Amino acid sequence: MLIAISDPDDPRIEAYRALRERDLLGRQHRFIAEGEVVLRVLLRQQPRFEAESLLLGEGRVESLDDALHLLPPEVPVYVANRQVMDAIVGFPIHRGILAVAKRPALPPVDVLLDSLPETALVVGMAGLANHDNVGGIFRNAAAFGANAVLLDRETCDPLYRKAIRVSVGGALVVPFTRAPSADALVQALEEASFEVIALSPSGAETLSRVQPSRRTALLLGAEGPGLPPGLLARTRTVSIPMSGGFDSLNVATTSGIALHHLTQGQ
Amino acid sequence: MLIAISDPDDPRIEAYRALRERDLLGRQHRFIAEGEVVLRVLLRQQPRFEAESLLLGEGRVESLDDALHLLPPEVPVYVANRQVMDAIVGFPIHRGILAVAKRPALPPVDVLLDSLPETALVVGMAGLANHDNVGGIFRNAAAFGANAVLLDRETCDPLYRKAIRVSVGGALVVPFTRAPSADALVQALEEASFEVIALSPSGAETLSRVQPSRRTALLLGAEGPGLPPGLLARTRTVSIPMSGGFDSLNVATTSGIALHHLTQGQ
Repeated sequence: MLIAISDPDDPRIEAYRALRERDLLGRQHRFIAEGEVVLRVLLRQQPRFEAESLLLGEGRVESLDDALHLLPPEVPVYVANRQVMDAIVGFPIHRGILAVAKRPALPPVDVLLDSLPETALVVGMAGLANHDNVGGIFRNAAAFGANAVLLDRETCDPLYRKAIRVSVGGALVVPFTRAPSADALVQALEEASFEVIALSPSGAETLSRVQPSRRTALLLGAEGPGLPPGLLARTRTVSIPMSGGFDSLNVATTSGIALHHLTQGQ
Repeated sequence: MLIAISDPDDPRIEAYRALRERDLLGRQHRFIAEGEVVLRVLLRQQPRFEAESLLLGEGRVESLDDALHLLPPEVPVYVANRQVMDAIVGFPIHRGILAVAKRPALPPVDVLLDSLPETALVVGMAGLANHDNVGGIFRNAAAFGANAVLLDRETCDPLYRKAIRVSVGGALVVPFTRAPSADALVQALEEASFEVIALSPSGAETLSRVQPSRRTALLLGAEGPGLPPGLLARTRTVSIPMSGGFDSLNVATTSGIALHHLTQGQ
């Protein structure tokens, strides 16, 4: 349902107003998807992530024509020219493609884990407060077909606009949920018969020698502080050997290396 | 040599003025190092990357005390309070740590390759125009002990402020130089007896089955366009298999996965 918008103050596009300021406040019940790649993933994920509306630049409708049919016909697609669109969101929105979607309720951790196949690979994140890293890890989890992602309470929101963008939509592909704490996250994995592999520079084993179990979970902590000692004590700890004097990998890159290693034999 | 600066217009700190605007112009003979991690790498790399001066926030001198002795005593270390420092650089510089260093002349590609040991691993980049990706690849090249990095003319500057920062100093660790073109880059590698492995989603072999040669070069192209067909035709092409429908890895992550695989047997 295409609807032309010519007034930036039109109440129908309220959800797109002052985008950055609202990013900072956080959105409890909705999230924003931005750019063509992410929008196409969102459209393929209907109705899991229910789109409420789209806001497109005038030139964008045609190039998305092949994907817009995935949208239920009652969902409004607002169309505005560049100037009106910039005035609505509050900054130059070069990509000219935005959508607002409903944030689904997150299932309890044990329910999500119980829904996974017998052979499964899960990624766990503890204390990851950087949206680029969380987005990058979701991109890798999607690329290597991880079955689910678990987050502790300190890990930031994968449905934050920038995290979705960095994940190139991976945050909309891999099922995820949140545990009340990193300890609860590991406990739920153990109870669901996952072997938890914690990546740490002080890990006891070398990644390249690790064979995945039937159910394997990869646990990642923040660059710098890393995973808390209590978690390392109860898990199988694994390191990636590096060249002398430069012991530093980005945590998203680390997840890609580990996921590649754990899936390459399959 | 500590020198207090109280006037943002002091001519001695000219090189730090309007940092962002000068970033955009590019610096022909100098580069800027920023933040504690990068500065510490720079200080360890004296005299290869000759520091001309430092500009530190007042609180920073003490925390760097153990590293500043690596600096030749005649190099000025300017010290300013937060307000003066922000006024000099033109924006709030939270890290409070800057240095200006001389950009060394780049050796011809064949000279650099001839200087490498008999067993060597080189990373080649063709058409990589994103500073985050170039920085991320240098970080991985340093982490996995690559012997050198080669860039074609289209690949962006690894000594750009942001690229060095993303590399966490790796751009100052791994020797690099530029070839006149991607073809010349590959030709120089072939003449120096390197087997060139080109990573491409259309690669004929699977990465996990590749055994490194005595001299191996890993060739990376930009996300999206990838490597030109002419280069793929003359190299050994390798892909990283991914999960159906989500065939997308960041190029820096790709470099980490490939470097890990190629070095893990050593």
